[in-house]
Amino acid sequence: MACPYFAEKSRPSDIQSKSLENRQSIDASQSDHNNGIINENQLSYKTYLKIPQLLSAQSLLSSEGGKVTPVHDEHLFIITHQAFELWFKQIIFDIESVIKVFDCEYLEERNTLCIIQRLDRVSQILELLCNQFPIMETMTPQDFLEMRAYLAKSSGFQSMQFRLLEIKLGVCDELRILYNKVHYTDVFFGEEKDKIFKARTEKSLLDVVNNWLERTPGVEANGFDFFGKYKSAVNGMIDQNKAHAEACKDLAKRQLLLEECQSQVDTFATLFDENLHDKLRAKGNRRLTHKATLGALFIYLYREEPRIHLPFQILQRLMDIDSAMLKFRYNHACMVQRMIGSKIGTGGSSGYMYLRSTCGDRYRVFPDFMNLSTYLITRDRIPPLSAKYKHGMSIHNWMEDLSSSKDDGDEESGIHSAASHPSPT
Amino acid sequence: MACPYFAEKSRPSDIQSKSLENRQSIDASQSDHNNGIINENQLSYKTYLKIPQLLSAQSLLSSEGGKVTPVHDEHLFIITHQAFELWFKQIIFDIESVIKVFDCEYLEERNTLCIIQRLDRVSQILELLCNQFPIMETMTPQDFLEMRAYLAKSSGFQSMQFRLLEIKLGVCDELRILYNKVHYTDVFFGEEKDKIFKARTEKSLLDVVNNWLERTPGVEANGFDFFGKYKSAVNGMIDQNKAHAEACKDLAKRQLLLEECQSQVDTFATLFDENLHDKLRAKGNRRLTHKATLGALFIYLYREEPRIHLPFQILQRLMDIDSAMLKFRYNHACMVQRMIGSKIGTGGSSGYMYLRSTCGDRYRVFPDFMNLSTYLITRDRIPPLSAKYKHGMSIHNWMEDLSSSKDDGDEESGIHSAASHPSPT
Amino acid sequence: MACPYFAEKSRPSDIQSKSLENRQSIDASQSDHNNGIINENQLSYKTYLKIPQLLSAQSLLSSEGGKVTPVHDEHLFIITHQAFELWFKQIIFDIESVIKVFDCEYLEERNTLCIIQRLDRVSQILELLCNQFPIMETMTPQDFLEMRAYLAKSSGFQSMQFRLLEIKLGVCDELRILYNKVHYTDVFFGEEKDKIFKARTEKSLLDVVNNWLERTPGVEANGFDFFGKYKSAVNGMIDQNKAHAEACKDLAKRQLLLEECQSQVDTFATLFDENLHDKLRAKGNRRLTHKATLGALFIYLYREEPRIHLPFQILQRLMDIDSAMLKFRYNHACMVQRMIGSKIGTGGSSGYMYLRSTCGDRYRVFPDFMNLSTYLITRDRIPPLSAKYKHGMSIHNWMEDLSSSKDDGDEESGIHSAASHPSPT
Amino acid sequence: MACPYFAEKSRPSDIQSKSLENRQSIDASQSDHNNGIINENQLSYKTYLKIPQLLSAQSLLSSEGGKVTPVHDEHLFIITHQAFELWFKQIIFDIESVIKVFDCEYLEERNTLCIIQRLDRVSQILELLCNQFPIMETMTPQDFLEMRAYLAKSSGFQSMQFRLLEIKLGVCDELRILYNKVHYTDVFFGEEKDKIFKARTEKSLLDVVNNWLERTPGVEANGFDFFGKYKSAVNGMIDQNKAHAEACKDLAKRQLLLEECQSQVDTFATLFDENLHDKLRAKGNRRLTHKATLGALFIYLYREEPRIHLPFQILQRLMDIDSAMLKFRYNHACMVQRMIGSKIGTGGSSGYMYLRSTCGDRYRVFPDFMNLSTYLITRDRIPPLSAKYKHGMSIHNWMEDLSSSKDDGDEESGIHSAASHPSPT
Repeated sequence: MACPYFAEKSRPSDIQSKSLENRQSIDASQSDHNNGIINENQLSYKTYLKIPQLLSAQSLLSSEGGKVTPVHDEHLFIITHQAFELWFKQIIFDIESVIKVFDCEYLEERNTLCIIQRLDRVSQILELLCNQFPIMETMTPQDFLEMRAYLAKSSGFQSMQFRLLEIKLGVCDELRILYNKVHYTDVFFGEEKDKIFKARTEKSLLDVVNNWLERTPGVEANGFDFFGKYKSAVNGMIDQNKAHAEACKDLAKRQLLLEECQSQVDTFATLFDENLHDKLRAKGNRRLTHKATLGALFIYLYREEPRIHLPFQILQRLMDIDSAMLKFRYNHACMVQRMIGSKIGTGGSSGYMYLRSTCGDRYRVFPDFMNLSTYLITRDRIPPLSAKYKHGMSIHNWMEDLSSSKDDGDEESGIHSAASHPSPT
Repeated sequence: MACPYFAEKSRPSDIQSKSLENRQSIDASQSDHNNGIINENQLSYKTYLKIPQLLSAQSLLSSEGGKVTPVHDEHLFIITHQAFELWFKQIIFDIESVIKVFDCEYLEERNTLCIIQRLDRVSQILELLCNQFPIMETMTPQDFLEMRAYLAKSSGFQSMQFRLLEIKLGVCDELRILYNKVHYTDVFFGEEKDKIFKARTEKSLLDVVNNWLERTPGVEANGFDFFGKYKSAVNGMIDQNKAHAEACKDLAKRQLLLEECQSQVDTFATLFDENLHDKLRAKGNRRLTHKATLGALFIYLYREEPRIHLPFQILQRLMDIDSAMLKFRYNHACMVQRMIGSKIGTGGSSGYMYLRSTCGDRYRVFPDFMNLSTYLITRDRIPPLSAKYKHGMSIHNWMEDLSSSKDDGDEESGIHSAASHPSPT
Repeated sequence: MACPYFAEKSRPSDIQSKSLENRQSIDASQSDHNNGIINENQLSYKTYLKIPQLLSAQSLLSSEGGKVTPVHDEHLFIITHQAFELWFKQIIFDIESVIKVFDCEYLEERNTLCIIQRLDRVSQILELLCNQFPIMETMTPQDFLEMRAYLAKSSGFQSMQFRLLEIKLGVCDELRILYNKVHYTDVFFGEEKDKIFKARTEKSLLDVVNNWLERTPGVEANGFDFFGKYKSAVNGMIDQNKAHAEACKDLAKRQLLLEECQSQVDTFATLFDENLHDKLRAKGNRRLTHKATLGALFIYLYREEPRIHLPFQILQRLMDIDSAMLKFRYNHACMVQRMIGSKIGTGGSSGYMYLRSTCGDRYRVFPDFMNLSTYLITRDRIPPLSAKYKHGMSIHNWMEDLSSSKDDGDEESGIHSAASHPSPT
Repeated sequence: MACPYFAEKSRPSDIQSKSLENRQSIDASQSDHNNGIINENQLSYKTYLKIPQLLSAQSLLSSEGGKVTPVHDEHLFIITHQAFELWFKQIIFDIESVIKVFDCEYLEERNTLCIIQRLDRVSQILELLCNQFPIMETMTPQDFLEMRAYLAKSSGFQSMQFRLLEIKLGVCDELRILYNKVHYTDVFFGEEKDKIFKARTEKSLLDVVNNWLERTPGVEANGFDFFGKYKSAVNGMIDQNKAHAEACKDLAKRQLLLEECQSQVDTFATLFDENLHDKLRAKGNRRLTHKATLGALFIYLYREEPRIHLPFQILQRLMDIDSAMLKFRYNHACMVQRMIGSKIGTGGSSGYMYLRSTCGDRYRVFPDFMNLSTYLITRDRIPPLSAKYKHGMSIHNWMEDLSSSKDDGDEESGIHSAASHPSPT
């Protein structure tokens, strides 16, 4: 059997014949293929991928209705934007599936690989999209100017999917920057507007990740009491530094060392003082709740613990996505500057300036993970895990399942294999 | 006025109002825009880019008709292929335009920048496409296996646009490798088949580049006689080497040096002997005619001559495209191997092996440019250009136009500006 | 305190003062830094990174001793090669550390994250190096020709580190291709030769990975008996396909279906028949032992099982490295072709042809992982894991450690934290 | 003869024997090579590239003098920085050569290809360097914390070559941001300080490009008078827009249209009014002189004119370098944030914040080129070139040389060939 783009005739579809009764109608047609004859009426690459529908979606305004000067590069302009939109659809599809997997009382450990792979895919796609801007830049500004008149007021500001993507990731509405006083939702109508408003009421990736981090076992005071122990460790360090400073005989130097100790105290206060944290969060400088921040810090510090490996990878993938989004915004802004300049020195905000302003930390979803490094302490100061904690942390402990099942290796009655569970869809 | 994806409200469309009478209907609606109100009925990002048509072209077979187990990654599979097809359309569009520009008695010098930019764009797009394969590889082989049954015999082998692209570039039909004894044209029907057969009768990029190179001034014997002078230079070098060898007293060493001289003679014979060249061409080891090869070599050797700069850049861009195509094929083959293995050790050719076999020089369109380095000689041996030649090479000499025009700087009667010529479309 | 290239004055070094007694001498000097004064005698970027030693290592032969024509691009040539060599050193350093971590009776689970990160780094570096070739290609062939005379017989074939890297990864000596009848070891002398011969006697990454895979629990017949169960599953599938074929009334079609069943039998025989596997291995078509292959297949099929996630990631990273190595070889070959051509049609193997021949599967270290997809079966046929197996697979079961320790959460007596273990160095 | 890394034994060095008398000593030894024997005493890859010197420049502080816990990733830290420094040396070498080529009364047209190639190389190298940051990020923040104590106050702020690079490109000293009140020159001593101060007195790339642009023929009032004609064209456009506005019966709309016309007037005033330009330049919003800006705009508008193709490519390459530098700074800042956090919410500027502040337009060298798009007008309004201008623009007209030389094609007496001129070094 052959398969799209893989041009392979090696694995008979019959391999799965019995278990896939519903593939019957396709199987029937495959016998033709087996004798090497391909006929016109079968499912083909063209029909499966809806190629005609796809390739008839490019209408150049500049060559419509007897225009004098068709603009060759309008074709590129359309194709590039459509490629962006196709990939946005994929990203939204993957992000939604990840939200669904996260959004449960306990995250099944067997689903973490799936989460990591999909987040990884999303950041790879975003990286790809960043590389589409230089292709757009092969259109010269003069050519773009020639076609701009045709575009009227249609604008990338109107990409519904890009807004959905931002909302689903968890970009904060309150932190958004107005563009020429227009709110981003005001350019949508009907079904598009509905989708955007609906998305704003649903849980974002940030929400479900925050909830998941809040559940990190070990953080709670009546358990391993990570927060308490960590505070002690940090305070011990600061005390030591203060003693060191005060022992310094050179007055000027002592003063400097003491100032530095105070700076440490201030830095850690943003973590230790929940009220301070909440104030920073209200201003948009923090996005996670205080409890979730502690969960994230815990994962950061104990990432070498086998059970923490995969949660740590999740945090890394989320940072990758955040970074890739910013890079996307930045490349977008630069492309716009090359195309239409930036009117430096005149009044009124230009498109470039607006886009440039969205490249800052305000538009980040996971800045808190980047900042975790601020609170790192050396390995010798990290509170060692207790045996009890180690036991407790294995929330969904598969060993416990074992105790209630037969231990005879009989797979008929045993636990059903991971492999037979479908991965989340 | 705003523009797609550029979110810019800086340049009034009215800027072009008078000269673009045919944009009138759009201009009318733009007055609304000027007062900042956006309404639903105007040309928008959504309608311009046909977003609904684009985003309704993804139908997952695995979730159709009550399938038990929808396969999440089928979505990625479809999107990736569709992105390939969108970009293929763009590449074909640009290649066709370049063929059209080349395909004339004389290549207008003012069009070379345009050619270079479009070729450059094509190789950039191909590079982007190479990076889509790793994204496809985020689909695990197990997931792919689960969905393969649904794909029946639809196959990337059936991508009409990829075949068109190969044909338009100039991939040689005779050098193609059969895949399981099926000719690549046999999987197309109706309109698709027609397009492919039509393309095979038209001039390819290779054809028009070859013709352009054959016209390189200076190569002809009754002009600058580049070929004659170059042969003399090479023969002089070889004679010197022979004399040097024969003067060697150590017998063994002399033998070796003489063998090396003979090797040089043999190497240059593939260029000097037109019959030998034609034989190699018949076998597919050369793609350019002998005359075109000399034109290319001429450009290679004299690239620092101002008038030769841009032709040299054209050769470089063509090599870039050739290399990017091979990289595309190679990445494709590797992706297939990861997805479905390669049945090493059993009979029958697998998809991987077929694809791997297309990564060789047989599928190159411009291997001759790569090989030009074989015939380079040091600068001090390169025949100096004669004054006469320098004059003759400026085929489309703009200075000559000047002599018949008024020299009074009056643009009304003077030569019409480059800028007022539209670029080729 | 500031740090190289990070230009940061935020974390007082004193943070670690007590626990790092051996950093005393540096600490002493840091007090100066604390008052913002930088003086000449402290450890600086320049001295730490040995910048003067590094930047005095570029001697252009073409501008030595009154050469008439210094070749500007020789500088690029030297820098690029030196950058390759620096990174080779890093790769070797990381690969050696990974070999050391793998090379023990049991792989500590806590070290898997470390392995994954280092393998990931290696493949990222190799990707970077692939991108150094296009930079080298900005040197034109003519320029390279002008400087070649100076290079005499020095050759990339003489890069000791590249050979070490190949050996340490596990490139098979017997599968190597001779270059103009010269064995790759024959161009080294003295210390370099010694290092290469020593490396050939040591365990390669392939060796230790093979050993680790052989230990995969569950494969053995007297345990979970994965091999037996998998064979049954495959044979059941093939029998079903045969029955399906024999029920077919159309004779021609029946014949085809039966041939396809036979093809399946042949394909799986390369896995089921250990002798056949060993023969393929003797020919270089397989690199892993039969037992290790089964271990790898096991990981492939059960990768969603939490404990198998990380081993699966290890296999993926190894494939990434293998692919990146091939890409490196391929880009290298292409660059050489651009620079010096390939003498198609003449006798004698050129550098390009030799390099091109090293881009095939013979030089792969982990082709077996790529081919695992050949043996995949659909999820519903994968033998479910038994409860007993699930218990058994947790070789280094941390829960067992718990049973013998106090369960009171007292970290003094409890298990020492992961975080306090240094990562392997 | 073989060559470094190219493993090629195809082109006898004797090819150049006579003309390269000064290569004699090397030629002598090559006879050995011809019989396939390589011996230890010849110039080898190792000695040519000074491999031992290069590979002995990595001293890990963390494993010196019996440190308890060597930090594995310090090796990566050193190698990455050294790779940065090697490439900085190359970039500086190329930029200096380009400055030298530019810095003359007339830019030889035959040198433009050389300039373009070297600028292209520089931006490719910068892109490569951007990709070195993700490799650095494979070092986890915890690992970095463990080694930071050893680094004392050595800092990337102390990279002399990076400062040289900035100075040579033309980063404006006055626009630089202080880092913790320390001036960037204050961290250098002795020879390093001297080099930096010397570089500040020399012409930068910006300086020589500015001078070259000022010489653009056609801009001057008594010649083609580009500025006058362009102003007329723009004013004509604005007048038309005003008339269009005033004819509007809807009062509100008229008001808006008139405001937009005023906005156009203001925008173009920044170009038309030299005093305004100079004020913007004094504030750092412009970097080019007014005259050079007009030259650049001229090139922008007439780029399709054959003689203007290559100057236009030069502008593009300069923008590429500017963009790549910003991307480099941005990636650097992000890496630092991942490694050491950013102390959001506390006083004092962190390394991240400092680096982030250098990613803005203040640190751009060629922002003016980006902004040229602001002043584009549609093709039909661009003043057509006069015949006289077309003649005049060919400053270094090779046709004129011809008139005074013999036209008999005798190369002995004719103009010396381009090919025999060495390229600038």
